[in-house]
This record gives sequence, structure tokens and C-alpha cells, in this order.
Amino acid sequence: MSEPRIAPGAVRRATGITVAEGFSAAGVHCGIRKAHADLALIASDREASAAAVFTRNRVVAAPIVVARECLERSAGIARAIVVNSGNANACTGPEGLAAARRTVEETARLLGVPETQVLVASTGVIGQRLAVERLVDGLPRAVAALSIEGGADAAEAILTTDTRTKETVRRVATRQGGYVVGGMAKGSGMIHPDMATTLGFVTTDAAVPPATLRACLRRAIEASFNRISVDGDTSTNDMVAVLANGASGVEVDAGGTEAFENALTGVLVDLAKAVARDGEGATKLIEVDVRGARDDADALRVARTISGSPLVKTAVHGADANWGRIVAAAGRAGAEVEPETMRVAISGVEVLRPGFVSQFSEEEARARMLRDTVVLEVDLGLGEGRAVTWTCDLTHGYVDINASYRT
Amino acid sequence: MSEPRIAPGAVRRATGITVAEGFSAAGVHCGIRKAHADLALIASDREASAAAVFTRNRVVAAPIVVARECLERSAGIARAIVVNSGNANACTGPEGLAAARRTVEETARLLGVPETQVLVASTGVIGQRLAVERLVDGLPRAVAALSIEGGADAAEAILTTDTRTKETVRRVATRQGGYVVGGMAKGSGMIHPDMATTLGFVTTDAAVPPATLRACLRRAIEASFNRISVDGDTSTNDMVAVLANGASGVEVDAGGTEAFENALTGVLVDLAKAVARDGEGATKLIEVDVRGARDDADALRVARTISGSPLVKTAVHGADANWGRIVAAAGRAGAEVEPETMRVAISGVEVLRPGFVSQFSEEEARARMLRDTVVLEVDLGLGEGRAVTWTCDLTHGYVDINASYRT
Repeated sequence: MSEPRIAPGAVRRATGITVAEGFSAAGVHCGIRKAHADLALIASDREASAAAVFTRNRVVAAPIVVARECLERSAGIARAIVVNSGNANACTGPEGLAAARRTVEETARLLGVPETQVLVASTGVIGQRLAVERLVDGLPRAVAALSIEGGADAAEAILTTDTRTKETVRRVATRQGGYVVGGMAKGSGMIHPDMATTLGFVTTDAAVPPATLRACLRRAIEASFNRISVDGDTSTNDMVAVLANGASGVEVDAGGTEAFENALTGVLVDLAKAVARDGEGATKLIEVDVRGARDDADALRVARTISGSPLVKTAVHGADANWGRIVAAAGRAGAEVEPETMRVAISGVEVLRPGFVSQFSEEEARARMLRDTVVLEVDLGLGEGRAVTWTCDLTHGYVDINASYRT
Repeated sequence: MSEPRIAPGAVRRATGITVAEGFSAAGVHCGIRKAHADLALIASDREASAAAVFTRNRVVAAPIVVARECLERSAGIARAIVVNSGNANACTGPEGLAAARRTVEETARLLGVPETQVLVASTGVIGQRLAVERLVDGLPRAVAALSIEGGADAAEAILTTDTRTKETVRRVATRQGGYVVGGMAKGSGMIHPDMATTLGFVTTDAAVPPATLRACLRRAIEASFNRISVDGDTSTNDMVAVLANGASGVEVDAGGTEAFENALTGVLVDLAKAVARDGEGATKLIEVDVRGARDDADALRVARTISGSPLVKTAVHGADANWGRIVAAAGRAGAEVEPETMRVAISGVEVLRPGFVSQFSEEEARARMLRDTVVLEVDLGLGEGRAVTWTCDLTHGYVDINASYRT
């Protein structure tokens, strides 16, 4: 039970974070979780530019503190990322900090790289002591298992209540040649916009200076992980990190930033949508597409409020075209909203026209809402502002997962 | 099925809004709902000072527009309140406005009072045409049924997904004599702080000038209905109204304002807690008591964020003393929070001491969390700020109620 599930005879190949040249990864079981891989390692065969965004929660886990320190001390250079699942190492005081630092030290020692070039992340239960000795015992096995095929194992080892791994890849062609941006993520609960939610890791073999990488990541996060919400809660451990090792030989300079940022955004949007679709207990992805707002900021307020509404999320779960709840959520978003000018469509069925005209086939709307992706389109009819957010439906499963006893 | 459920031979008496002298009420079935009383009427035998607070949603129902107009035109004087359940008359355009105005006109005509002295409220499904002709047909029966014993019928007729009526009474003794403040409320979903949530109606036989009544109501709401949250959604129809008819002969002047405001606050806190306890699908009331904040505003931010956290609400449902979720919610409240100084107790069991020391009997904590009221006490250890809020647990029942098809 200690190894990730691989079907016998399955062909293994690079996925997600190991598609870019020069990266390898591993996922093993070290005993923090009972019967699920719980230790992931990502390594670059050379120094990589590194950038990361972290939770904005005032209560931050020990690994966040340590990873921030490393990024500062190394001036944005990293060689590896080590991640455990099953324990958040949050609210664990000085002992927790020491555990995170020891994890970094051991990883650095085994890989033969500077301690400042190892990022550390944790995810799992808050407030319990991390069994760091088990983690340290497992590290040599993780290092030994590092391989191009290990991307899938790493993607498995970072999961908590997730039901599936989340990996994606984009390829960019340039006149200098091609490069890859690939990523993996976990995240199912405690997910809310306005910060880098969940854990996400991206690798690229493009050469990108640390400052450029930071700027691109900040904008890409705004359009991806900061646009999803599962339950309105915000983790103490959120972190999205990118490593760019230049192994492709392609340099992302002033001219090529846009293509790189588009690829990075694409990878992060793929991962963010995968996280929303796999929200705790979710059966559907909900896309909320708001246009016609006074400006983009107003559109985002409305989209986020609709995404966050438990009444909208339960109505979608029930395949009920209850547009009144969508309109009511828009009304409390703190944005400029004129009820009489609103237009609402659900997966292509126009359920409300301006002036509160509502004539549509309930049957058709219901049929479309039974699909595994539901699109809520709201046109405020006031301007050119637009924003898209993603969430999932709210189900018995969410209650089951979160009302169950920790131990 | 058209009449409220009264046990045969039950002794009927004044409750809630009809305990104060000079008030009568009725609750009848007029056919907006299938088999539940759906039309409530409250009347004063003389002119009463009136004050009300309304939803801050940008999308407001027709009755809110009309009730606001009446209060303005009458300069804060009212004789009656008419309320229907089963249909919110929201997002219904000009036809909805006409329906609300017609309800007021008919009520005024039947009672022989000015149209500006009748307040109207609605609660139920958004976006469906109100069958105002049924309401108008039912009004003569409601007027004929007006009685002191009708308070309970009115409390029944305003309910939607509520599982029980919500009524309360406070008595105040003064040197001039005694007076009564009584109230009733409905509300189960779409309940969120920062406005007058749900429908609440309060009557008193004290004499209170309209301006004083408005000021007292505004402060009392801040400490009661603005401190509860069920699901973070905000209705288009929220309204809390108070009528003060002076029938007791006691005048609330500058000297007696405090006693009156305390009684009004007490009534509204009782009703607000009853609403939270009866939240959709709820099995428990959760009281969140935050102290030690830098100031009261910070304490309120933290209390509201904990109250609004689905992860906290599901943990309480599962009787799981998962203090990490409480600390994580506090951390994202936007308040000054030092994780290391926090102390957390759950229904008297101290689960976290400063410095992240956590040693307690899980068994004892679990036993206390199985009770029907759970108190989450958080001491931030930073100052003197304090705030209390109320919410309920999040259960399968919430999903069942809100994922079911409207029709």
C-alpha cells in the first residue's frame, strides 16, 4: 500500500512537472499518512529561477515561513521542492519550524545542493505535530526514485481529500526553439479567491530571470488560482511555486514574455479549474462568466459573489434553473448593478432578459444543468467589464468529508 | 388545510406581537402556498410610531420599495403590517410593484386607515409573479380574524423553510408603569450579517417618538440580526419593523431610552438566535464569542469569519474539536491576529492555549459538542475588543432543502 497505484504493465512517461527538460520527480510513502503516498520531491538538474506566491492568511504554516526565507536568501534561485501531505505543519510553534528546516536541510544534503535552494511545502491537518523523523527516513527513497516518469507519482503524493491528480502541460514554439511549461496541483477544500489557493507547482525549461518570473506569476495567479472558490475558507499553507531552469536553451526576454506568460496562465487556469471541479464533494464544475459590468473589478466582484453563494451552488447541484438566486447574489456583491438591465443564461439557455422577462424551457435548462460543467452567464448591461470565475456544486459529499472526525 | 394548526381544545392566548396593548394579529391561508398559512396581518388600534431597517442588497423586492415609500410619506407613522409568504415578489418588475401597492391599498381600505400607514412585506421564491388577486381575496378573512390570540397564527403565516415559529416578549417596569416589547420573526436561509436579515416584526405599547424609535432600532439591529449568519447569502426582501403605539401610557423619553433599547435589543437577540438555530438543515446553534481583540471591530471581523466558515460549521456538525479550522478562519478575517497568543475553548473545554499548546480530552470535547448549543470562545490575547455572533451547523439538510427543485 505504500507505493502509488500503477496498473501492472502500464506505460510510464513524463507528465506534468517532468515534461520540461532537466526536471525529475518522485512520490513515495514515508508514513505520515496511513496508506497513501505522502512525500513528493521535484528536482532540477541545474539551478533554476524560482518564484512563488503564498497564502495571505495571518496564520501561516511553518513551511511557508521557511520557503519564503529560502527564496529571499537565494535571491530567487532553487534546485528542488519537497512536499508532504497528511499534515499541514501549521499552528505547531517552534517545533514545527524546526521540522520544516530539518526537512530542507536533509533534502539539500541528499541532493548535494545549497539549503537555500530547497523549497518546502506541507498540506493536511492543522495543529498536529509533524512526524519529521518519518519524513527524513523516507527522503533517501524519494531521492533514489527521482525520474522523469516520477511526475505522476509526485502529483499523487501531494493529494489530500482530492479524488484525482491534477497535471497539465503547454508547449511554446519560438524562433529560438521550443520549451515546455508543465504543472501539478492539489486542493479540494479551504479554497477561496484573493490569494494563491492550494498547492501548485510549475516547471519550465525556458530561461526566465527571477524578476520576470515573479511578475509573470503574479499576473497569471490573478487570472487563475485567484478566480476559484470551493468553500470560502483559506488555507494556512497555500503556495504556488514556479521553477525555470533554462534547459531548453530558449531565453524568455522582453520580447517573449507574452508567450511565456500566456503559457503559464494557461497551465495555472487548467490546474485551477481542475481544483474547482474536484472541490470536496463536487459533482460539477461551475463557470461564472460576468460581462457588461461598469469595469472589470465590478465584474469580478459579481462573479466571485455568485461563485461563493451556497444557494447558487446547491441550486446547480439540484439542476434547478433558479435564476433569482443568481440575481440576488449579484445584488449583494457591492458592485454597480441595475436589476432591470440584467440578462442571465444558464449553459446557453437564456433564463432572464432585461426588464425581468423570463420565458424559457425549464426542461431544457434542467437537461443542460445535469451535465458535468455548468456555465452561468450574467450580462449586467452597464459597460464593458468582464470576469470569469470557477467553483463547484455544494453537495452531501462536502458535509460528509468535513463533518467526519479527524482521527 | 387552509388554517394554521391549532390543537383541539388548546388554550389560546396573546403571544409575541400581540402581548403589547392595542395590537391584534391574524394569520390565514389565501392560496399563495399550497397548504400552509401564507397571509399575516398585524394591526394597532391607534396610530403607532414606526421604524424599519431594510436589506442592503442592490436587488430589492417590490414590497421593500413600497414600505420605504409609506414610511417616508407618513413620517414614521403606521397602523398595520401585511405580510405574505410563499412568494418574494422580487425581480417582478412593474407588475410586482403594482401588486405590492394593491396589497397596501386593499389592507388600508378594509381597516379604514390611510394607505401611507400600512407596511407591506413578502418572503418566498424570487422571480415569480405574485398571485395578488388571491392575496386580496384573502384579506377580508385576515381582517375578520384579527385578535389578540392571532399572534401565533401570524407567526406561523410568515414562515417559509422554517421548522418552527419564533416569538418572544420582554416586559419593562418603570415609575410610570409597565410596558411590553414583543416580536416575531422568520428566516432560515439567505441569512448573512451586515444588514437586517430575514423578516422581523416588533410591537410595543410604550410611546416612542419615531426618531427615537429609529435610532434605538438601528443600534439594536447591530447587536442582533446583524450578528447572525446561516449561509452567507443576503435576501432581496429583508426587513425588520417596529411599531410603538403608546397604549400602555408609558412614554419613553430621554431618561427611559436605555431601558427601552435594552428590551428591544433583547427581543431582537432572542429572535436572531432563534433564526440561527432554525437555519436551513441546522441541528445546533453555534455561538462564537471573540475577546481579546485589538478593538470591537476586529473582534467582530473574527467572529463573523468563524461564523461564516463552512469548515467550522461542518466540524461542529461532526462534533469534531478541530480547532485548527477556527484558528485558520481567524487568520483570514482581516483583523490583527497573532497566532501564538490565541486561546480557544469549545463549550468550556480549553482546546488551545497560547504558544500552540493543545492538550485536552477529545472525548469530553466531543460530548459537549453533541449538545444542541455549542459555544466557540476565542481569546486573541491582544486587547479588550469583544464581539459575539451566532450561526448554525452545516448539514445534509441544507443541501437537501436548497438542491430541491423549486416547483
